[in-house]
Amino acid sequence: MLVAKPEISSFQPPIRTLMGPGPSDVHPRVLSALARPTIGHLDPAFVGMMDELKGLLRYAFQTGNELTFAVSAPGSVGMETCFVNLVSPGDKVVVCINGVFGQRMAENVRRCGGTPVIVEDRWGDPVDPAKVEEAFKAHPDAVILAFVHAETSTGALSDAASLAAIARRFGALTIMDCVTSLGGVPVLLDEWGIDAAYSGSQKCLSCTPGLSPVSFSVAAVERIKARKVPCPSWFQDLGLVLGYWSGAKRTYHHTAPVNPLYGLHESLVMLAEEGLENAWQRHRDNHLRLRSGLEALGLSFVVRENARLPQLNTVWVPDGVDEAAVRTRLLQEFGIEIGAGLGALAGRVWRIGLMGHSSRQANITLCLAALESLLHG
Amino acid sequence: MLVAKPEISSFQPPIRTLMGPGPSDVHPRVLSALARPTIGHLDPAFVGMMDELKGLLRYAFQTGNELTFAVSAPGSVGMETCFVNLVSPGDKVVVCINGVFGQRMAENVRRCGGTPVIVEDRWGDPVDPAKVEEAFKAHPDAVILAFVHAETSTGALSDAASLAAIARRFGALTIMDCVTSLGGVPVLLDEWGIDAAYSGSQKCLSCTPGLSPVSFSVAAVERIKARKVPCPSWFQDLGLVLGYWSGAKRTYHHTAPVNPLYGLHESLVMLAEEGLENAWQRHRDNHLRLRSGLEALGLSFVVRENARLPQLNTVWVPDGVDEAAVRTRLLQEFGIEIGAGLGALAGRVWRIGLMGHSSRQANITLCLAALESLLHG
Repeated sequence: MLVAKPEISSFQPPIRTLMGPGPSDVHPRVLSALARPTIGHLDPAFVGMMDELKGLLRYAFQTGNELTFAVSAPGSVGMETCFVNLVSPGDKVVVCINGVFGQRMAENVRRCGGTPVIVEDRWGDPVDPAKVEEAFKAHPDAVILAFVHAETSTGALSDAASLAAIARRFGALTIMDCVTSLGGVPVLLDEWGIDAAYSGSQKCLSCTPGLSPVSFSVAAVERIKARKVPCPSWFQDLGLVLGYWSGAKRTYHHTAPVNPLYGLHESLVMLAEEGLENAWQRHRDNHLRLRSGLEALGLSFVVRENARLPQLNTVWVPDGVDEAAVRTRLLQEFGIEIGAGLGALAGRVWRIGLMGHSSRQANITLCLAALESLLHG
Repeated sequence: MLVAKPEISSFQPPIRTLMGPGPSDVHPRVLSALARPTIGHLDPAFVGMMDELKGLLRYAFQTGNELTFAVSAPGSVGMETCFVNLVSPGDKVVVCINGVFGQRMAENVRRCGGTPVIVEDRWGDPVDPAKVEEAFKAHPDAVILAFVHAETSTGALSDAASLAAIARRFGALTIMDCVTSLGGVPVLLDEWGIDAAYSGSQKCLSCTPGLSPVSFSVAAVERIKARKVPCPSWFQDLGLVLGYWSGAKRTYHHTAPVNPLYGLHESLVMLAEEGLENAWQRHRDNHLRLRSGLEALGLSFVVRENARLPQLNTVWVPDGVDEAAVRTRLLQEFGIEIGAGLGALAGRVWRIGLMGHSSRQANITLCLAALESLLHG
């Protein structure tokens, strides 16, 4: 054999408390669901599970959209699935950028051959609806508005209802990133009139990373069916994926990630058991608890109060503190993971997540005590 | 709430014996690895696990290729990753079609804006090297040869070494699908001179579906770096993915599917423990056992003897037998899943998999006894 057998043994991960921007702590019920016996991706029992999953996702997204399912890949593929199906070469798309993920949306538009019309806001601010209105007035031929509901890179929550209403007035469809919002704050696709939304499994749904729930309105499906240029991606072509996720006869498209979908199903069952309103309330209550403690430590928030995500608390690193050293000590001495800043905020902020199963009193108490000992100990 | 809470409880899958074209039976060690505690995708412990995984994959692929990792999505995305990175608009690609997955390769070339030069063989036959040679003579400007090593839709094994040698003689790179071959029969990337290869986690590696091991040669990486038109996919752009999977400082690209990667790591540790040669021998031995039994039942193989995949046994459905009814009874009465025919072979064949952990005596005995009772009982 040219390449010899490597001497590597089973991997035993350390125990962590996950308080970064995701993945969040995964509940033992979800971990245990992942380990259930694998069955075939076309097994009638599995197809039944997929149908349940669609119903559970419609509840989480608050939508009646038939085309609601989980893309078999991480949230960034959910994002790409929205763009490669809805944007054709030459299309003008208003893209709101107030953090990393808005930038990535613009990049997606470009790779689809579209032209992004950029609306910029300061990192840490929500998207300004007035600027979006101006952009549509200047570009009435824009066919889509794309924005991030909850910017994971900053912790800012934008007013999705107002943004979608502007797009509708100008006859444009709306693509919304709700990777970090779904399950943590209200996400009301039908009430707001969102046409395409994508999320991730590893944030407030507290499942393991790797799946991307998506949902498409009737208008979005019509636009996809009317495409003249084929979708550039075979895997993401919704015309093909649909045959597997819906209809009387399921046709093979790709082999679904069977066990990860067990996990997502279980996490959504748990969300339904708790009830969406209760989950939102829990995220709010725990945010307020964490906030008091962080402010008592002298830390201040990057995002203004009325636009703060309860599930993602971004605070300025105090002057003279080595931010990376604090994160390393939190991880090594306390097993706590918090997030660093990205892009424009790199090196300047910490992002403390209270998402899904991570949003609980014990995590808050531990994190505050650990931070106190490192900052003032 | 517009959408009421659905009444859905935890999903408990039935126990199956997976003898279709994948997923194969997942060993309890791998299932148990999936359920280990989730840690962050940038955690130093996780980065260490990723490095081990790369080493384990290099052993499985028999390659020294630095760019060897697992795409965070199913095998069809591994396929697409090869094409969207290596094929630019206007490129001519010789594509060998002898089943479903060769067709999908051609579709990928078209969506990348390339021109496929099709070399066709009968479904069930291996790729004919003489035809490939003719294609390159007629199209000396073709820059890539793409073929399927082990056609999952038919059970035919092609002569990868000869095919790659032809491509090399004409100065073309080679993309090889080894979804069903990796771990079941020899896959020797470096010895054969393959430039890009993709596989799947759920076949002879016996992990849960959803990950796609890939490997790229130095020449492939040079071609990718020399691209003039950007890769149409943000998620699959290897220039970006590389920053996360290699180098001294790992930069965030997407959130890796943490727990599924634990599973793949464990399945590759098990493959290394057994040893590649022993795994290949086991697949051969068990194929011969199954073959005797199937022939004793009067079933005949679709693929000629010297091109048969030991891990995927495709047999003609006897005249007068309702093939779907037999599969349904196998599933319902015995909990055994076997595969139906796809495309040109739909309704005419059964595909019986002996892949990875499914390749064992107990499965063979059970399957043969069940088939006998249904066909001759």
